[in-house]
Formats: sequence, structure tokens, C-alpha cells
Amino acid sequence: MGINLNEDNDSERLQRQIDFCRELDKEKFITRQTYLTDGNRKENDAEHAWHMAVMAIILSEYSNEPIDLLKTVTMILMHDVVEIDAGDTYAYDEQGKKTQREREENAANRLYGMLPDEQREKFRGLFEEFEARQTPEAKFARAMDNLQPLMLNAATGGKSWEERGIRISQVLQRNEITPNGAKALWDYAYANFIEPYAEAGKLKDDRRK
Amino acid sequence: MGINLNEDNDSERLQRQIDFCRELDKEKFITRQTYLTDGNRKENDAEHAWHMAVMAIILSEYSNEPIDLLKTVTMILMHDVVEIDAGDTYAYDEQGKKTQREREENAANRLYGMLPDEQREKFRGLFEEFEARQTPEAKFARAMDNLQPLMLNAATGGKSWEERGIRISQVLQRNEITPNGAKALWDYAYANFIEPYAEAGKLKDDRRK
Repeated sequence: MGINLNEDNDSERLQRQIDFCRELDKEKFITRQTYLTDGNRKENDAEHAWHMAVMAIILSEYSNEPIDLLKTVTMILMHDVVEIDAGDTYAYDEQGKKTQREREENAANRLYGMLPDEQREKFRGLFEEFEARQTPEAKFARAMDNLQPLMLNAATGGKSWEERGIRISQVLQRNEITPNGAKALWDYAYANFIEPYAEAGKLKDDRRK
Repeated sequence: MGINLNEDNDSERLQRQIDFCRELDKEKFITRQTYLTDGNRKENDAEHAWHMAVMAIILSEYSNEPIDLLKTVTMILMHDVVEIDAGDTYAYDEQGKKTQREREENAANRLYGMLPDEQREKFRGLFEEFEARQTPEAKFARAMDNLQPLMLNAATGGKSWEERGIRISQVLQRNEITPNGAKALWDYAYANFIEPYAEAGKLKDDRRK
């Protein structure tokens, strides 16, 4: 990399990188609200990020705009790192969302701060880009972040929605940004992952009220 | 993509891709022999692939040869897909390794066969490339596949080795290919993840016999 002056610095650099990599193991203990397709166990952040990343690779042709796929996959793989400290905030937890930004900001300072300077800037920058939802890569990554749990939720017959009494208006609000990343995938998801579960009463249909 | 002739084909293409993506959820149920850093729960294939992929991104500068990082990460994310059908074969299970190739071949036929033709060829090709260990990307990916569990095993004080009575000669044989991908990382791993556990008797030291 040409940025280190001597062997001690090289060795410190690698130690920081390894410490960060080991710390990431803790993402496997952060449980989300989505059930796996067996309908028994809930997914954790590491599994979610892996699944989203593979989906981004398989489905990249459906991005509305051309994307840098490596950048998108990197953003996806690390988008939940802050939850190691901040915890998972459920998509429909309105109280939790009020403090989410501050909790995640502190977490980003500590966790990305473990890395050597230029990697800290790069990967923290990708996290901020994901949060801001403006670039083609962030839009597509956010679409994956919404589509992956919709797919799993449909596979379990809408179990998580039914348990929590979720309303279709909440799902549509959450997914307002999904078509910005991948219109064709949103159309598919609406027809296959949402509408049938509203019809079946697993998702409360408050559109007609 | 310009390869489909009409809407029906587009719709069938997307359906195949989604079916494959949902099937991948089953990787989360394939348990490996490595303990997570808490020393209680064992890791699954999805978590392992995610961890390896992030490590490849953070540590890519240590590859012996220049690598295409997107190709490497894609290879890593999908390298255990066949275990959905074939199961995990423990690194030191000599009996299991005898039938591993055939079990994985059948699994690759079924699982990659779910995808549209050109994606089937592409991703199955990456799996074969990973198995063959010849390209710079495959060598680095295999190094991650070995280093990630060494890192976790060290974090738990060598618990998995101790439980199974693993000998240092087995670990060194397993890792014969690791320096081919990333010499500097192998040197670090030997000094930090292996040697201290042999010294402490967690790993049977059969070098002096």
C-alpha cells in the first residue's frame, strides 16, 4: 500500500485490521425480527447481510441505474456493523427509530475507528452513503435490504407480520424507497410477497378504511 | 440483459432467480465445527461466508498476487452453496472427505441448475475455480476460508481443537495452501492463532514425535 514507513507500522496496521475482523463476529449475535424460511428461528445480522449480498449479485441486472457491483456488495456486507453496539431497530418500531441515529453514530465512531485511517474513512463513508439513499448503489442496496425480509416473510406465510399486527400501510411506507432502486423487483415483490398476505389477512389491510 | 424474447421469458427468468435466492436461506441451517467468539454457539455456513467476504475486502492488500476483488468476494459468498444438499464436511473428517466430491457434484447440479443458463454457468464456474485453487482469486479465497476459522478458534482459546483432539500436523496440512494466497496473513496466523495453542496444549503438538 506504500503508506507505512516501517515494519512496526505494518504490524500495527495488520493487528488493527484483524481486531476489526474479529469484532465483526458479534454481528452474528444481533437478532432481527425476520423468521428464516423454516418459520422457527429468527435471522441475525450476519446472515441477513450475506443473503442480501448474494441477492445483489444475482439480481443486479434489475437495478434502475447502472451500479458498481463491488461497491454495492461492500456497502451491503457492512451496512449493519453499527448494530454490534446499537442493536437492531425493527422496521416498525417507531420509538426505537427516534434514538436510532444517535446510537448508530456512536457505534460507527467506535467500530470504524478500529480500522487504519484510510480504511476507516472509506468504509464509514460507504455506511453514510447507504444511509443517505442517494447514489445508485445505495438505492439498490436499500432495495435489497427491504426485499430480502419480504421474501423470507412470504416464505413463512407472513408469520412475523401476523404476530405483530403489522398494517399494509406500514409496509408500503417502509418500501417507498424500494422502487427507486429496482422498479421491476418492487413490482414482483408487491404482487408476490405483499398483496397475497394482505388478501389472506396475515397483513392488516388498512387501505380501504 | 437483451437475452429474453418476451415478457413471459422475463418473468420466468426472474422467478428462477428468486427461487434460487430463497433456496439459499437453507445455508443458514448448515452448522460448521467452529465456535463463534462467545465459545457457545457454532457457526453456520451463511455466517462463515459473510465473515470471509468482509475479511477479503479488509485484507485484500495482503494477497500475494493482484486479484479481481468482486470475483473473489462472489466466489466466497457462494462457495458453500453445495452444502445445502451435501452438508458440511469437517476439515479433519477423513471419512467424510472421501465422498465429499461426489456429494458436492450432485448438489451443484441441482442448486446451480435452478438459475437461468448463463448465470448457472457463471456461478458454477466460480465454484469449480474455488475448488481447483489455481487462480489468484481462488488462492486468496481459500486463504480466507482457512484464516477465518483459525481466528475464531483462537478467540475461544482453541476450544474446538481441544474437544476433538486435533494435532498440529493436521492443521498444518490443512493450511498448506494458505500461504499460496496470502503469505503475510499465514505468517501472522501461525504466530498468533496456532503456535500459542500448541504451546498451551490445546492443539496436540506431534511435531516432536
